[in-house]
Amino acid sequence: MSKLRVHCFSISLDGYGAGPRQDRESPLGVGGEALHDWFVPTRTFQRVVGKDGGTTGPDDDFAARGIANLGAWILGRNMFGPVRGPWPDDTWKGWWGTNPPYHVPVFVLTHHARPPLEMESGTTFHFVTDGIESALKQAREAAGARDIRLGGGASVIRQYLQARLVDEMHLAITPVLLGSGESLLGGLNTKALGYACTQHGTSDGALHCVLTRS
Amino acid sequence: MSKLRVHCFSISLDGYGAGPRQDRESPLGVGGEALHDWFVPTRTFQRVVGKDGGTTGPDDDFAARGIANLGAWILGRNMFGPVRGPWPDDTWKGWWGTNPPYHVPVFVLTHHARPPLEMESGTTFHFVTDGIESALKQAREAAGARDIRLGGGASVIRQYLQARLVDEMHLAITPVLLGSGESLLGGLNTKALGYACTQHGTSDGALHCVLTRS
Repeated sequence: MSKLRVHCFSISLDGYGAGPRQDRESPLGVGGEALHDWFVPTRTFQRVVGKDGGTTGPDDDFAARGIANLGAWILGRNMFGPVRGPWPDDTWKGWWGTNPPYHVPVFVLTHHARPPLEMESGTTFHFVTDGIESALKQAREAAGARDIRLGGGASVIRQYLQARLVDEMHLAITPVLLGSGESLLGGLNTKALGYACTQHGTSDGALHCVLTRS
Repeated sequence: MSKLRVHCFSISLDGYGAGPRQDRESPLGVGGEALHDWFVPTRTFQRVVGKDGGTTGPDDDFAARGIANLGAWILGRNMFGPVRGPWPDDTWKGWWGTNPPYHVPVFVLTHHARPPLEMESGTTFHFVTDGIESALKQAREAAGARDIRLGGGASVIRQYLQARLVDEMHLAITPVLLGSGESLLGGLNTKALGYACTQHGTSDGALHCVLTRS
Protein backbone atom coordinates (compact mmCIF):
# COMPACT_ATOMS: atom_id res chain seq x y z
CA MET A 1 0.00 0.00 0.00
CA SER A 2 1.21 3.50 -0.67
CA LYS A 3 2.80 5.32 2.25
CA LEU A 4 1.82 8.53 3.97
CA ARG A 5 5.03 10.53 4.26
CA VAL A 6 6.10 13.81 5.84
CA HIS A 7 9.25 15.45 4.48
CA CYS A 8 11.32 18.52 5.08
CA PHE A 9 9.21 19.60 7.99
CA SER A 10 11.40 22.10 9.80
CA ILE A 11 11.15 22.76 13.50
CA SER A 12 12.96 25.20 15.73
CA LEU A 13 15.33 23.99 18.42
CA ASP A 14 12.46 24.52 20.86
CA GLY A 15 10.13 22.38 18.78
CA TYR A 16 7.91 24.81 16.88
CA GLY A 17 6.85 24.24 13.28
CA ALA A 18 5.90 27.88 12.83
CA GLY A 19 6.33 31.06 14.79
CA PRO A 20 3.58 33.06 16.47
CA ARG A 21 1.11 35.33 14.65
CA GLN A 22 0.86 33.59 11.26
CA ASP A 23 -0.85 35.71 8.62
CA ARG A 24 -0.74 36.60 4.94
CA GLU A 25 2.52 38.52 5.32
CA SER A 26 4.14 35.91 7.59
CA PRO A 27 2.74 32.52 6.56
CA LEU A 28 5.28 30.83 8.85
CA GLY A 29 4.69 33.26 11.70
CA VAL A 30 7.12 35.74 13.16
CA GLY A 31 10.67 34.42 12.74
CA GLY A 32 9.44 31.27 11.02
CA GLU A 33 11.13 31.89 7.66
CA ALA A 34 14.50 31.07 9.22
CA LEU A 35 13.32 27.48 9.67
CA HIS A 36 13.88 27.00 5.95
CA ASP A 37 17.38 28.40 5.70
CA TRP A 38 18.74 24.88 5.10
CA PHE A 39 16.14 24.11 2.42
CA VAL A 40 15.90 27.15 0.15
CA PRO A 41 19.47 26.94 -1.22
CA THR A 42 19.15 23.26 -2.23
CA ARG A 43 19.22 22.26 -5.87
CA THR A 44 15.88 20.48 -5.36
CA PHE A 45 14.11 23.60 -4.13
CA GLN A 46 15.75 25.81 -6.73
CA ARG A 47 14.44 23.49 -9.46
CA VAL A 48 10.95 23.58 -7.97
CA VAL A 49 10.98 27.36 -8.37
CA GLY A 50 12.37 27.10 -11.89
CA LYS A 51 15.98 28.03 -11.24
CA ASP A 52 19.27 26.37 -12.06
CA GLY A 53 22.02 25.65 -9.60
CA GLY A 54 21.60 25.17 -5.88
CA THR A 55 23.53 23.19 -3.31
CA THR A 56 24.06 19.45 -3.21
CA GLY A 57 24.91 17.37 -0.13
CA PRO A 58 22.86 16.08 2.81
CA ASP A 59 20.32 18.91 2.74
CA ASP A 60 19.62 18.36 -0.94
CA ASP A 61 19.52 14.59 -0.50
CA PHE A 62 16.76 14.94 2.08
CA ALA A 63 14.96 17.55 -0.03
CA ALA A 64 15.05 15.28 -3.10
CA ARG A 65 13.57 12.35 -1.17
CA GLY A 66 10.62 14.57 -0.40
CA ILE A 67 9.46 14.85 -3.98
CA ALA A 68 10.15 11.29 -5.16
CA ASN A 69 7.28 8.95 -6.03
CA LEU A 70 4.39 11.17 -4.99
CA GLY A 71 0.87 10.66 -6.30
CA ALA A 72 -1.02 13.06 -4.05
CA TRP A 73 -0.62 15.59 -1.26
CA ILE A 74 -2.63 16.39 1.85
CA LEU A 75 -2.47 19.90 3.31
CA GLY A 76 -4.10 21.60 6.23
CA ARG A 77 -6.14 24.57 5.23
CA ASN A 78 -3.73 27.10 6.70
CA MET A 79 -1.03 25.78 4.39
CA PHE A 80 -3.33 26.50 1.47
CA GLY A 81 -3.92 30.07 2.49
CA PRO A 82 -4.52 32.71 5.15
CA VAL A 83 -8.32 32.74 4.81
CA ARG A 84 -10.10 31.67 8.02
CA GLY A 85 -13.76 30.70 8.46
CA PRO A 86 -16.15 30.31 5.49
CA TRP A 87 -14.70 31.12 2.06
CA PRO A 88 -15.95 34.63 1.19
CA ASP A 89 -15.55 33.76 -2.53
CA ASP A 90 -13.30 31.68 -4.78
CA THR A 91 -10.68 34.37 -5.21
CA TRP A 92 -7.98 32.72 -3.09
CA LYS A 93 -6.28 29.98 -5.10
CA GLY A 94 -3.30 29.16 -2.89
CA TRP A 95 0.04 30.80 -2.22
CA TRP A 96 1.61 29.56 -5.46
CA GLY A 97 0.08 31.41 -8.42
CA THR A 98 -1.49 29.70 -11.43
CA ASN A 99 1.02 26.84 -11.60
CA PRO A 100 1.51 25.36 -8.12
CA PRO A 101 4.50 23.06 -7.58
CA TYR A 102 2.45 19.91 -6.86
CA HIS A 103 1.40 18.58 -10.29
CA VAL A 104 -0.82 15.94 -8.65
CA PRO A 105 -4.14 16.09 -6.74
CA VAL A 106 -3.91 17.98 -3.46
CA PHE A 107 -6.44 17.33 -0.69
CA VAL A 108 -7.00 20.35 1.53
CA LEU A 109 -8.54 19.72 4.96
CA THR A 110 -11.11 22.35 5.83
CA HIS A 111 -14.40 22.75 7.66
CA HIS A 112 -15.80 24.77 4.76
CA ALA A 113 -16.84 23.13 1.49
CA ARG A 114 -15.71 24.48 -1.84
CA PRO A 115 -15.70 23.06 -5.41
CA PRO A 116 -12.47 21.49 -6.68
CA LEU A 117 -10.02 23.96 -8.14
CA GLU A 118 -8.11 22.89 -11.21
CA MET A 119 -4.82 24.68 -11.75
CA GLU A 120 -2.13 24.39 -14.43
CA SER A 121 0.17 21.40 -14.95
CA GLY A 122 -1.71 18.72 -13.06
CA THR A 123 -2.45 20.33 -9.71
CA THR A 124 -6.09 20.13 -8.59
CA PHE A 125 -7.10 21.24 -5.10
CA HIS A 126 -9.87 19.15 -3.55
CA PHE A 127 -11.46 20.47 -0.38
CA VAL A 128 -12.24 17.75 2.16
CA THR A 129 -14.68 18.52 4.94
CA ASP A 130 -15.19 15.10 6.51
CA GLY A 131 -11.91 14.58 8.31
CA ILE A 132 -8.40 13.20 8.08
CA GLU A 133 -9.32 9.58 7.34
CA SER A 134 -11.54 10.60 4.45
CA ALA A 135 -8.79 12.82 3.05
CA LEU A 136 -6.33 9.93 3.25
CA LYS A 137 -8.76 7.56 1.56
CA GLN A 138 -9.32 9.97 -1.30
CA ALA A 139 -5.60 10.66 -1.58
CA ARG A 140 -4.85 6.92 -1.73
CA GLU A 141 -7.33 6.49 -4.55
CA ALA A 142 -5.75 9.36 -6.44
CA ALA A 143 -2.17 8.28 -5.79
CA GLY A 144 -2.50 4.66 -6.91
CA ALA A 145 0.82 2.90 -6.36
CA ARG A 146 2.61 6.11 -5.53
CA ASP A 147 2.89 7.66 -2.05
CA ILE A 148 1.07 10.54 -0.42
CA ARG A 149 2.90 13.45 1.08
CA LEU A 150 1.47 15.12 4.13
CA GLY A 151 2.57 18.72 3.87
CA GLY A 152 1.43 20.00 7.26
CA GLY A 153 0.93 22.22 9.18
CA ALA A 154 1.82 21.05 12.62
CA SER A 155 -1.74 20.48 13.83
CA VAL A 156 -2.64 18.29 10.86
CA ILE A 157 0.53 16.22 11.26
CA ARG A 158 -0.24 15.79 14.97
CA GLN A 159 -3.70 14.45 14.11
CA TYR A 160 -2.29 11.91 11.65
CA LEU A 161 0.46 10.87 14.09
CA GLN A 162 -2.07 10.41 16.88
CA ALA A 163 -4.06 8.13 14.57
CA ARG A 164 -0.85 6.22 13.69
CA LEU A 165 -1.42 6.94 10.01
CA VAL A 166 1.97 8.53 9.21
CA ASP A 167 4.39 5.92 7.86
CA GLU A 168 7.52 8.02 7.61
CA MET A 169 8.40 11.50 8.81
CA HIS A 170 11.51 13.48 8.00
CA LEU A 171 12.10 16.39 10.35
CA ALA A 172 14.79 19.04 10.02
CA ILE A 173 15.70 20.47 13.41
CA THR A 174 17.17 23.92 12.95
CA PRO A 175 19.31 26.24 15.11
CA VAL A 176 16.49 28.76 15.44
CA LEU A 177 14.84 29.75 18.71
CA LEU A 178 11.20 30.77 18.26
CA GLY A 179 10.01 30.85 21.88
CA SER A 180 6.38 30.18 21.01
CA GLY A 181 4.22 29.01 18.12
CA GLU A 182 2.85 25.68 16.96
CA SER A 183 4.61 22.79 18.70
CA LEU A 184 4.94 19.72 16.50
CA LEU A 185 5.65 17.02 19.07
CA GLY A 186 5.04 18.60 22.48
CA GLY A 187 2.75 16.48 24.65
CA LEU A 188 2.39 13.84 21.94
CA ASN A 189 3.98 10.56 23.00
CA THR A 190 5.21 9.46 19.58
CA LYS A 191 7.34 6.73 21.13
CA ALA A 192 4.28 5.15 22.73
CA LEU A 193 2.55 5.44 19.35
CA GLY A 194 5.25 3.21 17.88
CA TYR A 195 7.62 5.74 16.33
CA ALA A 196 11.40 5.79 16.54
CA CYS A 197 14.19 7.75 14.87
CA THR A 198 15.60 5.17 12.48
CA GLN A 199 17.88 7.37 10.40
CA HIS A 200 19.59 10.69 10.86
CA GLY A 201 22.08 13.00 9.21
CA THR A 202 23.49 16.46 9.72
CA SER A 203 24.48 19.40 7.57
CA ASP A 204 25.88 22.77 8.54
CA GLY A 205 22.40 24.04 9.29
CA ALA A 206 20.18 21.16 10.37
CA LEU A 207 19.82 17.88 12.18
CA HIS A 208 17.79 15.63 9.91
CA CYS A 209 15.81 12.85 11.60
CA VAL A 210 13.63 10.23 9.94
CA LEU A 211 10.95 8.73 12.14
CA THR A 212 9.27 5.50 11.15
CA ARG A 213 6.49 3.52 12.79
CA SER A 214 6.89 -0.05 13.98
CA MET B 1 30.90 39.50 36.82
CA SER B 2 31.23 35.76 36.45
CA LYS B 3 28.74 34.06 34.13
CA LEU B 4 26.18 31.38 34.82
CA ARG B 5 26.64 28.81 32.06
CA VAL B 6 24.91 25.64 30.93
CA HIS B 7 26.92 23.24 28.78
CA CYS B 8 26.49 19.91 27.09
CA PHE B 9 22.86 19.69 28.07
CA SER B 10 21.47 17.06 25.72
CA ILE B 11 17.87 16.97 24.65
CA SER B 12 15.97 14.54 22.47
CA LEU B 13 14.55 15.61 19.11
CA ASP B 14 11.23 16.00 20.90
CA GLY B 15 12.76 18.27 23.53
CA TYR B 16 13.23 16.09 26.61
CA GLY B 17 16.28 16.37 28.85
CA ALA B 18 15.66 12.97 30.39
CA GLY B 19 13.38 10.04 29.70
CA PRO B 20 10.48 8.90 31.88
CA ARG B 21 10.85 6.95 35.16
CA GLN B 22 14.20 8.24 36.43
CA ASP B 23 15.61 6.16 39.28
CA ARG B 24 18.86 4.82 40.70
CA GLU B 25 19.26 2.34 37.84
CA SER B 26 18.25 4.83 35.13
CA PRO B 27 19.38 8.28 36.33
CA LEU B 28 18.51 9.69 32.89
CA GLY B 29 15.21 7.84 32.70
CA VAL B 30 14.21 5.13 30.27
CA GLY B 31 16.10 5.64 26.99
CA GLY B 32 17.87 8.72 28.32
CA GLU B 33 21.42 7.33 28.12
CA ALA B 34 21.31 7.66 24.32
CA LEU B 35 21.18 11.45 24.74
CA HIS B 36 24.90 11.29 25.56
CA ASP B 37 26.06 9.20 22.63
CA TRP B 38 27.78 12.26 21.15
CA PHE B 39 29.51 13.17 24.44
CA VAL B 40 30.88 9.96 25.94
CA PRO B 41 33.42 9.27 23.15
CA THR B 42 34.96 12.75 23.32
CA ARG B 43 38.52 13.24 24.51
CA THR B 44 37.24 15.69 27.11
CA PHE B 45 34.89 13.19 28.69
CA GLN B 46 37.40 10.36 28.48
CA ARG B 47 39.91 12.50 30.40
CA VAL B 48 37.33 13.32 33.05
CA VAL B 49 36.94 9.60 33.69
CA GLY B 50 40.71 9.08 33.70
CA LYS B 51 41.18 7.56 30.28
CA ASP B 52 43.42 8.40 27.34
CA GLY B 53 42.25 8.86 23.78
CA GLY B 54 38.78 9.92 22.71
CA THR B 55 37.48 11.82 19.71
CA THR B 56 38.32 15.34 18.66
CA GLY B 57 36.22 17.61 16.43
CA PRO B 58 33.05 19.65 17.03
CA ASP B 59 31.67 17.41 19.77
CA ASP B 60 34.91 17.59 21.72
CA ASP B 61 35.24 21.33 21.13
CA PHE B 62 31.84 21.89 22.74
CA ALA B 63 32.63 19.43 25.54
CA ALA B 64 35.92 21.21 26.30
CA ARG B 65 34.23 24.61 26.53
CA GLY B 66 32.05 23.16 29.24
CA ILE B 67 34.89 22.63 31.70
CA ALA B 68 36.91 25.78 31.01
CA ASN B 69 37.18 28.53 33.65
CA LEU B 70 34.77 27.10 36.21
CA GLY B 71 34.86 28.14 39.86
CA ALA B 72 31.65 26.50 41.09
CA TRP B 73 28.74 24.32 40.01
CA ILE B 74 25.03 24.38 40.79
CA LEU B 75 23.05 21.13 40.60
CA GLY B 76 19.47 20.19 41.22
CA ARG B 77 19.10 17.60 43.87
CA ASN B 78 18.08 14.85 41.46
CA MET B 79 21.39 15.28 39.66
CA PHE B 80 23.14 14.67 43.00
CA GLY B 81 21.31 11.45 43.67
CA PRO B 82 18.13 9.37 43.59
CA VAL B 83 17.12 10.05 47.21
CA ARG B 84 13.75 11.85 47.47
CA GLY B 85 12.30 13.59 50.52
CA PRO B 86 14.27 14.11 53.78
CA TRP B 87 17.77 12.58 53.85
CA PRO B 88 17.46 9.31 55.82
CA ASP B 89 21.16 9.60 56.76
CA ASP B 90 24.42 10.85 55.25
CA THR B 91 25.21 7.64 53.36
CA TRP B 92 24.50 8.99 49.87
CA LYS B 93 27.48 11.03 48.67
CA GLY B 94 26.65 11.51 45.00
CA TRP B 95 26.86 9.33 41.91
CA TRP B 96 30.62 9.78 41.51
CA GLY B 97 32.44 7.90 44.30
CA THR B 98 34.99 9.49 46.63
CA ASN B 99 36.58 11.73 43.99
CA PRO B 100 33.85 13.52 42.02
CA PRO B 101 34.83 15.20 38.75
CA TYR B 102 34.08 18.78 39.91
CA HIS B 103 37.15 19.84 41.97
CA VAL B 104 35.37 23.06 43.02
CA PRO B 105 32.45 23.84 45.36
CA VAL B 106 29.14 22.38 44.19
CA PHE B 107 25.86 23.90 45.38
CA VAL B 108 23.02 21.38 45.48
CA LEU B 109 19.47 22.76 45.50
CA THR B 110 17.24 20.84 47.91
CA HIS B 111 14.35 21.36 50.29
CA HIS B 112 16.15 19.31 52.95
CA ALA B 113 19.11 20.68 54.90
CA ARG B 114 22.30 18.71 55.29
CA PRO B 115 25.84 19.63 56.43
CA PRO B 116 28.44 20.31 53.73
CA LEU B 117 30.16 17.21 52.40
CA GLU B 118 33.85 17.47 51.65
CA MET B 119 35.12 14.99 49.09
CA GLU B 120 38.59 14.38 47.59
CA SER B 121 40.45 16.73 45.24
CA GLY B 122 38.58 19.95 45.90
CA THR B 123 34.92 19.00 45.55
CA THR B 124 32.68 20.07 48.43
CA PHE B 125 28.92 19.66 48.19
CA HIS B 126 26.94 22.46 49.84
CA PHE B 127 23.22 21.92 50.29
CA VAL B 128 21.15 25.05 49.66
CA THR B 129 17.59 25.17 50.97
CA ASP B 130 16.67 28.81 50.35
CA GLY B 131 16.25 28.87 46.59
CA ILE B 132 17.95 29.47 43.27
CA GLU B 133 19.02 33.06 43.89
CA SER B 134 20.71 32.13 47.15
CA ALA B 135 22.51 29.24 45.48
CA LEU B 136 23.73 31.58 42.75
CA LYS B 137 24.91 34.15 45.27
CA GLN B 138 26.86 31.54 47.22
CA ALA B 139 28.27 30.08 44.01
CA ARG B 140 29.42 33.53 42.87
CA GLU B 141 31.23 34.08 46.14
CA ALA B 142 32.93 30.71 45.80
CA ALA B 143 33.80 31.13 42.11
CA GLY B 144 35.44 34.55 42.34
CA ALA B 145 36.45 35.67 38.85
CA ARG B 146 35.64 32.31 37.33
CA ASP B 147 32.26 31.21 36.00
CA ILE B 148 29.56 29.00 37.44
CA ARG B 149 28.23 26.00 35.61
CA LEU B 150 24.60 25.08 35.99
CA GLY B 151 24.52 21.31 35.58
CA GLY B 152 20.76 20.76 35.53
CA GLY B 153 18.39 18.97 35.56
CA ALA B 154 15.77 20.39 33.29
CA SER B 155 13.53 21.81 36.01
CA VAL B 156 16.38 23.72 37.66
CA ILE B 157 17.53 25.15 34.32
CA ARG B 158 13.95 26.22 33.57
CA GLN B 159 13.81 28.10 36.87
CA TYR B 160 17.05 29.94 36.15
CA LEU B 161 15.97 30.73 32.57
CA GLN B 162 12.64 32.05 33.77
CA ALA B 163 14.51 34.36 36.17
CA ARG B 164 16.81 35.45 33.28
CA LEU B 165 19.85 34.37 35.30
CA VAL B 166 21.43 32.05 32.71
CA ASP B 167 24.03 33.92 30.65
CA GLU B 168 24.93 31.22 28.17
CA MET B 169 23.45 27.82 27.39
CA HIS B 170 24.87 25.17 25.11
CA LEU B 171 22.34 22.52 24.09
CA ALA B 172 23.05 19.38 22.11
CA ILE B 173 19.99 18.25 20.19
CA THR B 174 20.22 14.56 19.48
CA PRO B 175 18.52 12.18 17.02
CA VAL B 176 16.74 10.34 19.82
CA LEU B 177 12.97 10.16 20.24
CA LEU B 178 11.92 9.82 23.89
CA GLY B 179 8.19 10.47 23.62
CA SER B 180 7.86 11.74 27.18
CA GLY B 181 9.99 12.90 30.09
CA GLU B 182 11.23 16.25 31.34
CA SER B 183 10.83 18.94 28.67
CA LEU B 184 13.57 21.57 28.79
CA LEU B 185 11.99 24.40 26.79
CA GLY B 186 8.33 23.44 26.29
CA GLY B 187 5.97 26.23 27.27
CA LEU B 188 8.86 28.51 28.26
CA ASN B 189 9.10 31.53 25.96
CA THR B 190 12.87 31.88 25.97
CA LYS B 191 12.74 34.32 23.07
CA ALA B 192 10.52 36.69 25.04
CA LEU B 193 12.96 36.28 27.95
CA GLY B 194 15.69 37.71 25.72
CA TYR B 195 17.43 34.57 24.48
CA ALA B 196 18.55 33.79 20.94
CA CYS B 197 20.65 31.11 19.29
CA THR B 198 23.85 33.01 18.55
CA GLN B 199 26.10 30.12 17.54
CA HIS B 200 25.62 26.62 16.26
CA GLY B 201 27.54 23.66 14.92
CA THR B 202 26.87 20.10 13.90
CA SER B 203 28.60 16.76 14.20
CA ASP B 204 27.51 13.34 13.02
CA GLY B 205 25.38 12.89 16.10
CA ALA B 206 24.19 16.28 17.33
CA LEU B 207 23.07 19.78 16.52
CA HIS B 208 24.88 22.07 18.94
CA CYS B 209 23.19 25.40 19.74
CA VAL B 210 24.49 28.15 21.99
CA LEU B 211 21.82 30.44 23.43
CA THR B 212 22.80 33.78 24.88
CA ARG B 213 20.73 36.48 26.55
CA SER B 214 20.50 40.01 25.27
